[in-house]
Amino acid sequence: MNWPTHVTVKEVGPRDGLQNEKKLIPTTVKTNWIDHLSESGLRHIEITSFVHPKWVPALADAKDVAKSIQRREGIVYSALVPNQKGLEAALETNVDEIAIFMSATDTHNKKNINKSIVETLPILRQTAEEAIKANKPVRAYVSTAFFCPYEGRTNPENVRKISESLLEMGVYELSIGDTVGTASPLQVEETLKHLLKNIPVNKLAMHFHDTRGTALPNTLKALEMGIAAFDSSCGGLGGCPYAPGASGNTATEDLLYMLHQMGIETGISEEKIIKNALFMETQIGKSLPSKSLKAYKGRISTLSKKGDKR
Amino acid sequence: MNWPTHVTVKEVGPRDGLQNEKKLIPTTVKTNWIDHLSESGLRHIEITSFVHPKWVPALADAKDVAKSIQRREGIVYSALVPNQKGLEAALETNVDEIAIFMSATDTHNKKNINKSIVETLPILRQTAEEAIKANKPVRAYVSTAFFCPYEGRTNPENVRKISESLLEMGVYELSIGDTVGTASPLQVEETLKHLLKNIPVNKLAMHFHDTRGTALPNTLKALEMGIAAFDSSCGGLGGCPYAPGASGNTATEDLLYMLHQMGIETGISEEKIIKNALFMETQIGKSLPSKSLKAYKGRISTLSKKGDKR
Repeated sequence: MNWPTHVTVKEVGPRDGLQNEKKLIPTTVKTNWIDHLSESGLRHIEITSFVHPKWVPALADAKDVAKSIQRREGIVYSALVPNQKGLEAALETNVDEIAIFMSATDTHNKKNINKSIVETLPILRQTAEEAIKANKPVRAYVSTAFFCPYEGRTNPENVRKISESLLEMGVYELSIGDTVGTASPLQVEETLKHLLKNIPVNKLAMHFHDTRGTALPNTLKALEMGIAAFDSSCGGLGGCPYAPGASGNTATEDLLYMLHQMGIETGISEEKIIKNALFMETQIGKSLPSKSLKAYKGRISTLSKKGDKR
Repeated sequence: MNWPTHVTVKEVGPRDGLQNEKKLIPTTVKTNWIDHLSESGLRHIEITSFVHPKWVPALADAKDVAKSIQRREGIVYSALVPNQKGLEAALETNVDEIAIFMSATDTHNKKNINKSIVETLPILRQTAEEAIKANKPVRAYVSTAFFCPYEGRTNPENVRKISESLLEMGVYELSIGDTVGTASPLQVEETLKHLLKNIPVNKLAMHFHDTRGTALPNTLKALEMGIAAFDSSCGGLGGCPYAPGASGNTATEDLLYMLHQMGIETGISEEKIIKNALFMETQIGKSLPSKSLKAYKGRISTLSKKGDKR
């Protein structure tokens, strides 16, 4: 029982969950969803991404979403930006926080934003500087931190170098991403051991995808190493267009179930997140990967067959 | 990196996976499946259950299955029996091993076999004795070892008492079951700590269900506590008729992925198990819960779109 007593769960469903969806989700559905997520006890929601609509058409309504949500006191609403242009658009809304991103491997970074890591660093530096100048805290994603679909297994030393460069830009937290969803608890242990030599544990969050079912065991290993911030997506929505075969993020409700059962506080209502997942499942029109959602639906159907309408 | 270097994976798909299936699976499909599973490197397959067909109609062909499979050298083919009558039927085939079962909670045991725990113990004792007399090793399942759908959270002390009674009968291994799939790594740690005070670690196997996504994190915790035998089901098939909302067993291929990535040997081919899952998915006609199977299908579909037929 060697894990944090409180964990911050950062909801990335409206951004990472939806960015890859082929079905067009109307802006009002997105804002409705975010507004309901705001009532679940979440303290951090990444609501959209200010990238060029050519690249992520699913989030072309970024500005409308950011302007239309009902902002609730105490919640940080963040948005992803690739560069200064994205930042400028984001700053025209009142998002509270800026997220920047970078791959730990050159090929994935090029496929993602058409630039090498070396070319990306000064762009991110400038973006982070301007965001901080505008009083917006900056968070950074390090993608393909474990495996790159083009380059194979990622060297933890590359993750460390990029992480340190990002921290030097004034980033307050790094989200270390298993983009394809191949990491195992062993690799999480090895990579985190390497990072923790130079980076304080409270600067690190983990961002797992559940492609092969390892999102929660990886979370357990990270918890055992002291990590207390995790990204997840309501319903387990998600994927990456430049990571073939990658499936959804850790489902928020599955993460919450495990954390709460382990006596770890999050302040978030599992039931409210499940109801939000149910809502999005109906909107998207296909079943979402979340296990807790399936268990909930199973229980509901059993109860109604018995005539018990609880 | 404090876990066993080798793990025994016991395939329970043909029994635990199929017992709850509403769609009738023809005997030849079952035996085909078992024969292919025999080629994957598995060393232990639970092939069927000799219970009254009134209770488990899906396995009414137990004798035919047991007699028709192609037995492969080095593989233990086991069958579940509830009592002496079941044992007699099993002994008319040439299964190698007998599995008996018992709930850790009275209400579940009654719902399952219409008898209290106290009434069941002498029946199991006699069954185990006769199996051992017939040179069949006996394995025992302890169901609802973490949670009972009727009684709530299970007291680890009850699990210990029942486990010890079963060991006294000559059972060589206990399979500690999270029947409903509600356990968390914390509860696994607490229950195992309690059991390990009195029971040697090599007498324990774990049997998880993935109802809320905790099968693999629970496995990781059990590995960290030295457990080196796990039950799982190809494709993640499974459930329990007397545990509402319970979903499939740990998917064998997901378990293998995690174990192999952690450097733990099993001797089993992940790819062969995935192909077996694909086969059963087609036969059952609904998508199975396994994550690795989904990732495999995603990869195949991406490759074929690219015209790459690898």
